[in-house]
Amino acid sequence: MTVFPYSSALIVGAGPGLSASLARQLAGRGVKVALAARNIDKLSRLAGEIGAWMFAADAAQPASVAALFNVVAAEIGDPEVVIYNASGRLRGPLAELDPAAVEQAIAVSAYGGFLVCQQAARRMIPQGRGAILLTGATASVKGYAQSAAFAMGKFALRGLAQSAARELGPKGIHVAHFIIDGGIRSEMRREDPAKPDATLDPDAIAQTYIDVLLQHRSAWSQEIEVRPWTESF
Amino acid sequence: MTVFPYSSALIVGAGPGLSASLARQLAGRGVKVALAARNIDKLSRLAGEIGAWMFAADAAQPASVAALFNVVAAEIGDPEVVIYNASGRLRGPLAELDPAAVEQAIAVSAYGGFLVCQQAARRMIPQGRGAILLTGATASVKGYAQSAAFAMGKFALRGLAQSAARELGPKGIHVAHFIIDGGIRSEMRREDPAKPDATLDPDAIAQTYIDVLLQHRSAWSQEIEVRPWTESF
Amino acid sequence: MTVFPYSSALIVGAGPGLSASLARQLAGRGVKVALAARNIDKLSRLAGEIGAWMFAADAAQPASVAALFNVVAAEIGDPEVVIYNASGRLRGPLAELDPAAVEQAIAVSAYGGFLVCQQAARRMIPQGRGAILLTGATASVKGYAQSAAFAMGKFALRGLAQSAARELGPKGIHVAHFIIDGGIRSEMRREDPAKPDATLDPDAIAQTYIDVLLQHRSAWSQEIEVRPWTESF
Amino acid sequence: MTVFPYSSALIVGAGPGLSASLARQLAGRGVKVALAARNIDKLSRLAGEIGAWMFAADAAQPASVAALFNVVAAEIGDPEVVIYNASGRLRGPLAELDPAAVEQAIAVSAYGGFLVCQQAARRMIPQGRGAILLTGATASVKGYAQSAAFAMGKFALRGLAQSAARELGPKGIHVAHFIIDGGIRSEMRREDPAKPDATLDPDAIAQTYIDVLLQHRSAWSQEIEVRPWTESF
Repeated sequence: MTVFPYSSALIVGAGPGLSASLARQLAGRGVKVALAARNIDKLSRLAGEIGAWMFAADAAQPASVAALFNVVAAEIGDPEVVIYNASGRLRGPLAELDPAAVEQAIAVSAYGGFLVCQQAARRMIPQGRGAILLTGATASVKGYAQSAAFAMGKFALRGLAQSAARELGPKGIHVAHFIIDGGIRSEMRREDPAKPDATLDPDAIAQTYIDVLLQHRSAWSQEIEVRPWTESF
Repeated sequence: MTVFPYSSALIVGAGPGLSASLARQLAGRGVKVALAARNIDKLSRLAGEIGAWMFAADAAQPASVAALFNVVAAEIGDPEVVIYNASGRLRGPLAELDPAAVEQAIAVSAYGGFLVCQQAARRMIPQGRGAILLTGATASVKGYAQSAAFAMGKFALRGLAQSAARELGPKGIHVAHFIIDGGIRSEMRREDPAKPDATLDPDAIAQTYIDVLLQHRSAWSQEIEVRPWTESF
Repeated sequence: MTVFPYSSALIVGAGPGLSASLARQLAGRGVKVALAARNIDKLSRLAGEIGAWMFAADAAQPASVAALFNVVAAEIGDPEVVIYNASGRLRGPLAELDPAAVEQAIAVSAYGGFLVCQQAARRMIPQGRGAILLTGATASVKGYAQSAAFAMGKFALRGLAQSAARELGPKGIHVAHFIIDGGIRSEMRREDPAKPDATLDPDAIAQTYIDVLLQHRSAWSQEIEVRPWTESF
Repeated sequence: MTVFPYSSALIVGAGPGLSASLARQLAGRGVKVALAARNIDKLSRLAGEIGAWMFAADAAQPASVAALFNVVAAEIGDPEVVIYNASGRLRGPLAELDPAAVEQAIAVSAYGGFLVCQQAARRMIPQGRGAILLTGATASVKGYAQSAAFAMGKFALRGLAQSAARELGPKGIHVAHFIIDGGIRSEMRREDPAKPDATLDPDAIAQTYIDVLLQHRSAWSQEIEVRPWTESF
């Protein structure tokens, strides 16, 4: 196996699914992994399984994010890989959405991404290296009806990713944005045996994140979409 | 001149420049025009010139936007055309931006757009007609270095525009997003005589907004970019 | 009515539908209109109706296109507006398409567009003005299954449009690309009374072409999509 | 090392640079590699080095491409991986380009891609598996001035890639399009020691192709861009 270029990682907005797959694959390559979420109860089993650190944090609160990076640094050092997986999903007719819920959805999907990106940048710039991976969705590039708030947050995160990539790339920091174009397989979204692999296997997505982390800086990808072989797009 | 299909308009985030040109052209076609801004002092001359109504409102505050639509309705009726021109510009290195200023920039560029769009939708849906025009920038489709907050807000507004168009179009409401790809001519950004028309004439931009308002519903544009003939892109 | 800035136009790939609407609207503004097609029989009625010139030409043959521009110049002067409407539609499974038909489809949709664009550029550059309008389709931005040849031609035409716009814009020539995102109403594709305006009215599309021709050079659009209000996208 | 899922590959438009890197990496994983080019003289050293098969073929000629797939099948079996790397570069002012050269450039960049894709599809569909990788460039998504022919070819190839992916994906065939956004390092384009890794290392690009070939079908990428860390975009 290729020597993995990073030794520590922080996953913000961690939960079961993609974050768990990422955490396992990183841990399996010897990376110290910190998991952060608003509610860490659901992370205990995973953290125990792979020996990860857990931290409660609200990604949409500047002080909470700053504190998170401080405690992570104290425990495992400044994270060399930072992954932002939090997102605020909200559906409903535009005319009926609760404005406070929309504000919160944007805060979780995008503003939290900014806060995490900023803390990561501050710590990575002096090192001249690091990676920031941001997780998008179909809604990152297509605003669906009844999904204004989710589209706003995910479009905004994509704008952040582009801006950060242009700014931080020449400083040695690999910023990549992933468009997960389909449903991720989970306890609640099980495989339909009649349609194998029609949902995204989180381990398969995580493999592509790992591939991107292993890319040579002369040929970095900035945006990568993944979707099931049977998905219409 | 074609009979203009709308009789009332509200421009939110009005100021000199594009908003003034839009107000003049709409007023010139017999449309009752309401102008809203946080600070209406700068609007007095224009309002007087074209006989427009002025309202102070904070586009990023749900209660303020709701109140705005109520007073506008009382004065000129529910606006049949609603234009969102507010935007929160903020530049600087990602690592140094003030989180509160970023939050505010997103609120002005995007969340305010949502609030205005929502109020407009509530009033237009029962009528089965209306137009909502949202003003974007180069940053709507390209996230530049040192410009994360502006890109986040403008990308998010574009996501809103797409979602609203898909949802409200089939209800008879024309939602269009404009990408102003270049600098708008103004008192502060004067023409360079050596490079004629290298800045966008706000009257010329406004003409394209009017063209879009006049489009037949069988052939609506959802996104239109305008840029000077000499602009690189 | 605004004074129309152009006095002569050539529509290549003319037929009934959009080209006829364009021809009528241009003629109605005092523009001398030349219509070119491989088979001009179908154009006779329209040409008679509006007093247009007709020319037989094969847009995919360099000599034919060069000859066309020469005869047009002799009859009505060098055309100040050139519109390319020819396209090579071809459907079928990728594995079964006839290679010669694919080659021909690309030639009609894209190579012919290049030849016409080149002749137009040669005549417009010395004048420092003119407009070249290229007609695309949904397939210009989305390659559908069973539609490889049409996507190839229309994607290529869009690449030409961008390249020509970047090169010729600063020389005073307005190059615009239109994405017709839906079915155009015609004798064969009639309106469904239950779904009014669910097909594009060719007159409505033509109006947007005229609007673009009237744009001030400080605020040109390079790409404009039009679709019915009820169209999913 | 992961077991590689394919045992034979054909690279069309092979030359030094990216194709050589791909050939070496595939051969290093036990894949039988066939190299095809119009002129195979330049391939002899590489073929000898890695034990690859060489075939002369003109990708833009249907009969030549059909014959190529037949001889490849006879020598190494139907290729499970097919890579299209040929492209027709041509620069110059739109008004001055030689039409025949433009036609040829489109034929090499795009029509040849279609012919190769079609032959590959015919052989892969019955197997229900395979991979078709198409190599694009910055010009695939951006038409530059003085580069109309190259943009036309590369845009068209991207349209083909999308169409083929939508059609062949659900048949088990992974179609992916790569946007090489920058200059590839070569004998002629050497590294500037003052700007390390400012050109794309062909081995690094090839690694991303290999990563994509290894993707699980539940999370395929359809389009992947790679660029140097210092590249503006």
